[in-house]
Amino acid sequence: MRDVARTAGVHPGTVSRVLNPRTRELVNPVTAGRVEQAAREMGYSLNPIARGLKTRRTFTVGVLIPDLENPLFPPIIRGIERVLDSAGYTALVASTDGEPAQERQRLEALIARQVDGFVIATAERRHPVVADAIASDLAVVLVNRTIDGGGVFAVVPDDRRGSATAVAHLAGLGHTRIGHIAGPQSTTTGLLRHRGFVEAMGDAGLAVGPEQIAHGETFTIAGGARAARTLLASAEPPTGIVAANDLLALGAYTALADAGLDCPADVSVVGFNDMPFADRFDPPLTTIHIPHGHIGARAAELLLERIEDPEATPQTLMFEPTLIVRESTAAPPRKPRRSPPGSGGTAARGSRGAGPTR
Amino acid sequence: MRDVARTAGVHPGTVSRVLNPRTRELVNPVTAGRVEQAAREMGYSLNPIARGLKTRRTFTVGVLIPDLENPLFPPIIRGIERVLDSAGYTALVASTDGEPAQERQRLEALIARQVDGFVIATAERRHPVVADAIASDLAVVLVNRTIDGGGVFAVVPDDRRGSATAVAHLAGLGHTRIGHIAGPQSTTTGLLRHRGFVEAMGDAGLAVGPEQIAHGETFTIAGGARAARTLLASAEPPTGIVAANDLLALGAYTALADAGLDCPADVSVVGFNDMPFADRFDPPLTTIHIPHGHIGARAAELLLERIEDPEATPQTLMFEPTLIVRESTAAPPRKPRRSPPGSGGTAARGSRGAGPTR
Repeated sequence: MRDVARTAGVHPGTVSRVLNPRTRELVNPVTAGRVEQAAREMGYSLNPIARGLKTRRTFTVGVLIPDLENPLFPPIIRGIERVLDSAGYTALVASTDGEPAQERQRLEALIARQVDGFVIATAERRHPVVADAIASDLAVVLVNRTIDGGGVFAVVPDDRRGSATAVAHLAGLGHTRIGHIAGPQSTTTGLLRHRGFVEAMGDAGLAVGPEQIAHGETFTIAGGARAARTLLASAEPPTGIVAANDLLALGAYTALADAGLDCPADVSVVGFNDMPFADRFDPPLTTIHIPHGHIGARAAELLLERIEDPEATPQTLMFEPTLIVRESTAAPPRKPRRSPPGSGGTAARGSRGAGPTR
Repeated sequence: MRDVARTAGVHPGTVSRVLNPRTRELVNPVTAGRVEQAAREMGYSLNPIARGLKTRRTFTVGVLIPDLENPLFPPIIRGIERVLDSAGYTALVASTDGEPAQERQRLEALIARQVDGFVIATAERRHPVVADAIASDLAVVLVNRTIDGGGVFAVVPDDRRGSATAVAHLAGLGHTRIGHIAGPQSTTTGLLRHRGFVEAMGDAGLAVGPEQIAHGETFTIAGGARAARTLLASAEPPTGIVAANDLLALGAYTALADAGLDCPADVSVVGFNDMPFADRFDPPLTTIHIPHGHIGARAAELLLERIEDPEATPQTLMFEPTLIVRESTAAPPRKPRRSPPGSGGTAARGSRGAGPTR
């Protein structure tokens, strides 16, 4: 652009305006003609639509996010952008607030803007908008969550294994009464983390009844606080909680503080995602790390492959989660809460007097 | 759409595909013809480009964000979306990583997609991309930061007043040695918070020398930690720190912990923004609350006004900040650090023996 500007004897901003059909009329026609001639001679074209006409592409990709205020998504978007940038594509992000009507409207607005494909982070297990998009032969890659059934490109965490890792961590610390704050079961992340929890409890030989599972209606702090209160009110409250994501875990912190309980001295909490700032919470959150930047980057790579080759075979990539131990987990209290009154003494003393040999 | 589908005897997804030029060819021509006739009869048009041709609008707005991973921006975007949604517009968000080349490319991609205007959160004080956009007569509203000089629509916090409020809070607690972690001076937020700090110190009769100001090169935790280390290494380290944003304040937490100092017992810290999760940090952060959702919403309203009336007079709206006191601020330690060795005893004892009457 700078070369065209020098040749035509104008400011680079003028070149930009002339070569863009939207702004061309703002430039004096004689100058515009000179710029266009210089650009033609130098084989330069700024306008992505003109570039798209040749290749039938617009070099833009739509990204649908359910909730930008969940700090999980910005690292995914950054991963997507990193790959798209280096391939000369631009990501246009739209958030849907988890509202199907809003999502359809966003999708259609982006289709009308002729994006070359979509990375979709809003999938629910049964999802008409996503199903329609795939049926319409749009290039689509799902990220973080996927849909029930196959026929789709997706890049997701290994949700079951993540929950299993969290359960194994708490069991290894000596916890036997472990509860789960489940996410919405309409999402694969909510469902599979729940199933992974139940399976891992069974594998560890630990009982898991319905009173050990409480459901957050949404993946939010408020949802987590309500669910944690339900767990704490049960006859045998848990000494350890596996939350289906970090916001639900933060909600558990709130409920514990409200109940006058200490985390981790009274109740340990494990999150899921390792979202930004999880290390700065009080206490710093033990959680299941998911490489969201890599997940976003691989989703973008898959999408570019799919755009190049519409016949590409659908595939699902699952990323392995890793446990990050911080300060929200510890051994269970030696004297469980809600033991019969009058069993006496401090936790240490009580435990000394109530060993397995007696 | 459901009515059209019922009349034509097809699935609503088919109506969506037929009425979209991008996906029309995927539908069998006989069915497509039936859907189009039903849509015409019912006066229904799905295609925003077709709608745009009538009104010369596309009902999309581009939003440029410097760094989606700064939790400050999602609430601004949500405010923008709330207003645009109710006016039938869709926001397309692009992030620029603070890179001018990336920003220009994003802006041009959005112009090529024929957005009706821009909300720009990436402004630096001297900003060729923004200046060009305004000169090209694009509808532009700046949000959070503005540019030097006038001629632009902007919605920003009252940055000077925010710093003054933070200084007054620390001075009221008894601090006299107050330092500032300044943000990048290339932004109005960095510059005006710095100037507001210096002015407020003068107004409070407190000395402010160059060793009391340390600069974060970026609005990041790492930048804040480096700057805080500089402040702590000075001959008379501060007992209170005013950080130009919350990420810089978090960096100060890191530097204090590394130096074995307690916040707030040894050093108080005040942030700026009240970003999401500021109440969950360890310790919960005292900060200057900015109503980012309202700022985003007002920016979108101004943009819609500007789109309706290209002759509208540029205006800058400044939002009043409010102090949120949490647990990162307290009275200064009674015995300042780095006092001469051998002055003996604990802080409490030393203070008893070293009162002003001696």
